[in-house]
Amino acid sequence: MATAGKVIKCKAAVAWEAGKPLSIEEVEVAPPQAMEVRVKILYTALCHTDVYFWEAKGQTPVFPRILGHEAGGIVESVGEGVTELAPGDHVLPVFTGECKECVHCKSEESNMCDLLRINVDRGVMMGDGKSRFTINGKPIFHFVGTSTFSEYTVIHVGCLAKINPEAPLDKVCVLSCGISTGLGATLNVAKPVKGSTVAIFGLGAVGLAAMEGARLAGASRIIGVDLNPAKYEEAKKFGCTDFVNPKDHDKPVQEVLVEMTNGGVDRSVECTGNVNAMISAFECVHDGWGVAVLVGVPHKEAVFKTHPMNFLNEKTLKGTFFGNYKPRTDLPNVVEMYMKKELELEKFITHSVPFSEINTAFDLMLKGEGLRCIMRMGE
Amino acid sequence: MATAGKVIKCKAAVAWEAGKPLSIEEVEVAPPQAMEVRVKILYTALCHTDVYFWEAKGQTPVFPRILGHEAGGIVESVGEGVTELAPGDHVLPVFTGECKECVHCKSEESNMCDLLRINVDRGVMMGDGKSRFTINGKPIFHFVGTSTFSEYTVIHVGCLAKINPEAPLDKVCVLSCGISTGLGATLNVAKPVKGSTVAIFGLGAVGLAAMEGARLAGASRIIGVDLNPAKYEEAKKFGCTDFVNPKDHDKPVQEVLVEMTNGGVDRSVECTGNVNAMISAFECVHDGWGVAVLVGVPHKEAVFKTHPMNFLNEKTLKGTFFGNYKPRTDLPNVVEMYMKKELELEKFITHSVPFSEINTAFDLMLKGEGLRCIMRMGE
Repeated sequence: MATAGKVIKCKAAVAWEAGKPLSIEEVEVAPPQAMEVRVKILYTALCHTDVYFWEAKGQTPVFPRILGHEAGGIVESVGEGVTELAPGDHVLPVFTGECKECVHCKSEESNMCDLLRINVDRGVMMGDGKSRFTINGKPIFHFVGTSTFSEYTVIHVGCLAKINPEAPLDKVCVLSCGISTGLGATLNVAKPVKGSTVAIFGLGAVGLAAMEGARLAGASRIIGVDLNPAKYEEAKKFGCTDFVNPKDHDKPVQEVLVEMTNGGVDRSVECTGNVNAMISAFECVHDGWGVAVLVGVPHKEAVFKTHPMNFLNEKTLKGTFFGNYKPRTDLPNVVEMYMKKELELEKFITHSVPFSEINTAFDLMLKGEGLRCIMRMGE
Repeated sequence: MATAGKVIKCKAAVAWEAGKPLSIEEVEVAPPQAMEVRVKILYTALCHTDVYFWEAKGQTPVFPRILGHEAGGIVESVGEGVTELAPGDHVLPVFTGECKECVHCKSEESNMCDLLRINVDRGVMMGDGKSRFTINGKPIFHFVGTSTFSEYTVIHVGCLAKINPEAPLDKVCVLSCGISTGLGATLNVAKPVKGSTVAIFGLGAVGLAAMEGARLAGASRIIGVDLNPAKYEEAKKFGCTDFVNPKDHDKPVQEVLVEMTNGGVDRSVECTGNVNAMISAFECVHDGWGVAVLVGVPHKEAVFKTHPMNFLNEKTLKGTFFGNYKPRTDLPNVVEMYMKKELELEKFITHSVPFSEINTAFDLMLKGEGLRCIMRMGE
């Protein structure tokens, strides 16, 4: 391409400081260096994690920064040593990577790549410790190696999943993070069998994706647990058969679930990050075979507490990171689940705005409205 | 048999009160009722659980009682409705049962039978709420449905595993409880793959059986963890390649293990019941794929505490009851592992005494000497 090897000037949404509205700026995007790829982002979505690091409460503040990590794009050019991707390839950037060389990548069980595992504090590229973004020569920091709130961005090749070019990027872009996280938590980790009972704690986008996984696995009873009763209607589209609001009961919600399921659910998936919900999600599974899976990220000081007899009664507690999907190896197959019309992504996309209106997406998420808002780059 | 349907008078070791030496008495053993089997015990072993309920510290005292639950015997007669066993069959009594009808028995994953699950407080038969043992007409209580410290005992058919009659009962009797518990914890629950690293916490009989499981699974590095350095020599016979004494280190033992294994062990099995050891056993497994299995029974007030990020980093925590073996379905196969000379049981049998010297077995266990003491009935 004519732009290869040159600096590209384009629009990006810059977070100048914590909690302040993003500002659309013209940024310079340097060419990709060794093992890097420059990607033209076509669609990006907003995920809670962006908002979390934009608010930077209790986090190391890294500003000015270009946030964004759920997106779909097309390779513009590749740096030295990149052989798996070429200009024109359709890709999903991922906040965590797959080097294919470390013990985790070589393990069939893990997706926690040693080299490219999520790093929320690093605002620069790994290769040379520098940013590829500048405004009038002043560096702007990256975010989790993706920074998709920019028309062009530079990403390590290990953090890009090459997908079917026929897949609509305005839909499959949501598979970059939250939806795959919830879906994989159920399909890859909880693994409910057909006809089983599954409880999902927290009915945000990740929880509903976990629910979508339960529906796809053929669970016959899917119990949604949320403090907001309004979530039930939306959840029904994802297969929710029962709804429990912990506020409606005097006893701990795990006891309510054990009673209504004659001994406990077969599987539970916790998507809130609240440690009490984690404890409930674990204690509500059936003895003998129940499996609880933790997805939601807890506070730094959180302590998980339970009586060890719960384990000795043959309940299992697991956790997952990005739904146990290996980004490069597995995401293309998740895209195919959508292409085969098994996985329904449209249900997750409740809003769509021009990129220039990115602050509207932040407002919607802060108000808890909708699930995913897609931003159309170039508009 | 000539004795069928009649009361049998025989020798039994009676615990008249908590903590007092057992007394060999002549007891009357009533014929088996519906779904019950009367078994002639040939060999019985002593397990910590017998001592625990004999001491009855913090337990409901149930005395006078005939303890004992690790044993091998031969069916003398069967009660109404018993079709799976006949006089002459060789059997291992088990403290927990398998009714083959409940949701647990029908589940492929669970062995926690609803009907016949261990009950430590009940001192009578389930069918009629009465004891089958009397001394001069005064009832003597049963223990966990087995009461094998008697030349004859009456057991529910669901708590008897029919085994290969060629198996030497003086050896395979130890498979009734502790050895199967440890072995199954590793083979059925932790499931280490060939070449992996396994840590075993607590090197008593159960821990060494867990270690034997790791050896059979082909683990290449087996780390024993115990507060008693003298355990290392014995453990080497079970495949122990490294020994760690938590007392030798200033930092938590999980940190020591993580350092010496470059990130954590692949599997750990906790056999002490100490909640701090449980926490260490969980936290020492490798992120991405590590699995910890709890076997040791905790105190009633114990609280398992850990940071939930340990789960989100893809560590799994499980527990097991009787090594996840279904007593009737699976124990015969464990016996076959011994018959094929894969499983080595002789290593566990450190002492053998006439039944009349049963208090010697108690003394040995209280002093922590040896692993299993076999008592020869009729001597």
